[in-house]
Amino acid sequence: MDRRGFIRTLSALGATSALAPAAVVAETMPHGVADGTRTAGPPELTVDGARLNDSLEELRRFGGTPDGGTHRVAFSDDDLQARRWLREILEGAGMETRVDTAANLLARRPGRRSDLPPLLTGSHVDTVPRGGSYDGHVGVMAAVEVARTLHDAGVRTRHPLEVVVWANEEGGKTGSRAWAGEVEPSELELSTASGRTIGEGLSFLGGDPDRLDAVLKESGDLSAYFELHVEQGAVLDRREIEIGVVEGIVGIKRWTVTVTGFANHAGTTPMDQRRDALVAAARFVDAIHRTARNRPGRQVATVGRIEALPGAPNVIPGEARLSLEIRDLKMETIDSLFESLQEEAGRIGEETETEFSFERFYLSRAAPTDSRLRDLVEASARELGLSALRMPSGAGHDAQSVALFAPVGMIFVPSEAGISHSPREHTLPEDVTNGANVLLRSLLSADETDWV
Amino acid sequence: MDRRGFIRTLSALGATSALAPAAVVAETMPHGVADGTRTAGPPELTVDGARLNDSLEELRRFGGTPDGGTHRVAFSDDDLQARRWLREILEGAGMETRVDTAANLLARRPGRRSDLPPLLTGSHVDTVPRGGSYDGHVGVMAAVEVARTLHDAGVRTRHPLEVVVWANEEGGKTGSRAWAGEVEPSELELSTASGRTIGEGLSFLGGDPDRLDAVLKESGDLSAYFELHVEQGAVLDRREIEIGVVEGIVGIKRWTVTVTGFANHAGTTPMDQRRDALVAAARFVDAIHRTARNRPGRQVATVGRIEALPGAPNVIPGEARLSLEIRDLKMETIDSLFESLQEEAGRIGEETETEFSFERFYLSRAAPTDSRLRDLVEASARELGLSALRMPSGAGHDAQSVALFAPVGMIFVPSEAGISHSPREHTLPEDVTNGANVLLRSLLSADETDWV
Repeated sequence: MDRRGFIRTLSALGATSALAPAAVVAETMPHGVADGTRTAGPPELTVDGARLNDSLEELRRFGGTPDGGTHRVAFSDDDLQARRWLREILEGAGMETRVDTAANLLARRPGRRSDLPPLLTGSHVDTVPRGGSYDGHVGVMAAVEVARTLHDAGVRTRHPLEVVVWANEEGGKTGSRAWAGEVEPSELELSTASGRTIGEGLSFLGGDPDRLDAVLKESGDLSAYFELHVEQGAVLDRREIEIGVVEGIVGIKRWTVTVTGFANHAGTTPMDQRRDALVAAARFVDAIHRTARNRPGRQVATVGRIEALPGAPNVIPGEARLSLEIRDLKMETIDSLFESLQEEAGRIGEETETEFSFERFYLSRAAPTDSRLRDLVEASARELGLSALRMPSGAGHDAQSVALFAPVGMIFVPSEAGISHSPREHTLPEDVTNGANVLLRSLLSADETDWV
Repeated sequence: MDRRGFIRTLSALGATSALAPAAVVAETMPHGVADGTRTAGPPELTVDGARLNDSLEELRRFGGTPDGGTHRVAFSDDDLQARRWLREILEGAGMETRVDTAANLLARRPGRRSDLPPLLTGSHVDTVPRGGSYDGHVGVMAAVEVARTLHDAGVRTRHPLEVVVWANEEGGKTGSRAWAGEVEPSELELSTASGRTIGEGLSFLGGDPDRLDAVLKESGDLSAYFELHVEQGAVLDRREIEIGVVEGIVGIKRWTVTVTGFANHAGTTPMDQRRDALVAAARFVDAIHRTARNRPGRQVATVGRIEALPGAPNVIPGEARLSLEIRDLKMETIDSLFESLQEEAGRIGEETETEFSFERFYLSRAAPTDSRLRDLVEASARELGLSALRMPSGAGHDAQSVALFAPVGMIFVPSEAGISHSPREHTLPEDVTNGANVLLRSLLSADETDWV
């Protein structure tokens, strides 16, 4: 057992169970449905970690691979079957379920105040091809477990509580972006790894791509949205911290950088007479890394793709093309880093007699989480005796679509070695349980406040 | 007119024509053929520059493109037609022609001493796809012009003189390598840009791929081989020098370099936790360039191809692959530079937590020219009042195959801006004429000596 495992065990044995969640409220008259809800929640309400982790494993019935990963691309048969299975479980926990026109699966548990907009929690169950078994899954099964826990304990929240399983997160966050009105009609024609177009896939899952407007949300439609997710990075794992309090989802800009030199014979052109586009590009790749690393802050900059033209071992490259991606919580940080890099490119261009040009091909705006929900998630973690760290989410999530019209809170649990989008993706069972408990406590705390 | 043009004009007006070639010998009894040879060569024997440059333009009838380039890939119809046309011209200059089993076109002019091995000169007329109109062509048309000049002047050399038009230079130097016994049977199966395999192409041009052994040469079969060629680099053009005295054809080694890091999410992996294979590869590309440039000597090192894997803008590359090519006249220089670069790679690997591996996939040994022929070429240039520079040939040539069994001399003329393998390839008419005059004078000087 490592140090973090030891701390986790201590915490599970003592601190956690001794703390009473503040937001559990007795109820005598359930609204809307008769579900056998008890009249008072136990003060120490926590999720059933064993049931949660078992359900996570059971989800692997749909597309699980022998290597521990999951291949369940959006709109596949396994995607549909997993949703049907989830629907049964949610109904078994006394919830009313429906599929909206954007093919999002929704389950609703009435609140004591039917006039309040719901608290929403969930994530996705579709995976990248040959992906892992935690990305998205943990957030969905924790949301289900929270619903089951409330159901079993007979706790009725003030706000209605809804669980969501978003459609096609990995292939473009279609379900959540539809709520924000961001899905372009042309997008529905795009083909996906399932073999279906996005439009066909939405229909396949029970949605209606011709009526996406029906799901459009506006400010006030939701009280708050919480999403628990695996970090997909190694920050928590390396620092042995149990809970990440997400400050927001970073903004992203991507450019194609073209370096123009002069193609020439690699045998007949002396070293001092070359205008080698790849040498210039290489210096720029190094400069990008060093500049992003040496600045204060948590910005990241990556070159993931590079090409030299014409691309023969015996020809000095006359052109080089590379991708540049910068991410940060603040768009201004992205822009100011980019300006520095353009200056670097100018300097390198002068010394190598080459020219740099930049063409932006992608933009995703930063989506900060709600500062009150951030405080609330952090307090929940502390009250449960869990270590917590405020951090950005470097990856995109459905929460960033929801942030466009509602307050959003996000909770991270550690990813072993930061590995994600791989069958080797793994989060320890106790970390999954911790995350679900923070989610439960955060929802119950949020339930005490009127957010909109 | 630039400085070089001015010098060239002076030289053409005065110095050149005033100098008598030393090797012109009167003959009274032609051997072998009655070709109307006069009994004494004029002391100022030089080529007909206008005829030479006209013939170079006429050769463009076969595959010339509107942009001034030539598309005449080996074994194409244009290649065959060009050879037929050349054969007629050579026969018109009183030579006996034949095509050997390696599809090389040969023309012979008897010498006064039929017991001496021939002096050989020539080059190739096949081009790369959409190539230029000088690479190879200048050497062939100058050889033809030398033969015509001797014929017109009635000069009979001591040695038999042969002109060669090699087969498939651009696609692997098939014709000249067959003479050295270096063509592997499997090579004949390779397809070429003509649509024919090399074997089919040799037959198409009148060769016999089943009897390549018939052309095998050994030491003593040739007195000497001279090849005039465009430099294909910018050394002569930049330094405004008229003639390059080639010291040899550089050796070449090529490696595939693989850099292994760890692929990870570009959004969730902080800059200081990355093992980015492309950042390491980029530093190596820069180190290769700097190291090769800063060492004394004329070695060149080039990275012409690079790839990052998996190759997505949002994934930190876990692997990078690149080609490394080093050329020098001395194989030891290549090896010692490679050792330094391996050390650099080790250092970069340590600082980036990546690993470098090298796999060699190509080797071509350096082929020095004959030192006596070098002196003789240089003396010929000086006697003609032309500036000359000793230099390596960074590109490969048929001469390097011949160097395996006979003394070889090579003459370079300037390539404008060093451009080659492009329709923009260009050599000034006066430079072509200068080269042919140096070739003529070198052959006549060589004729005075018994080389084998």
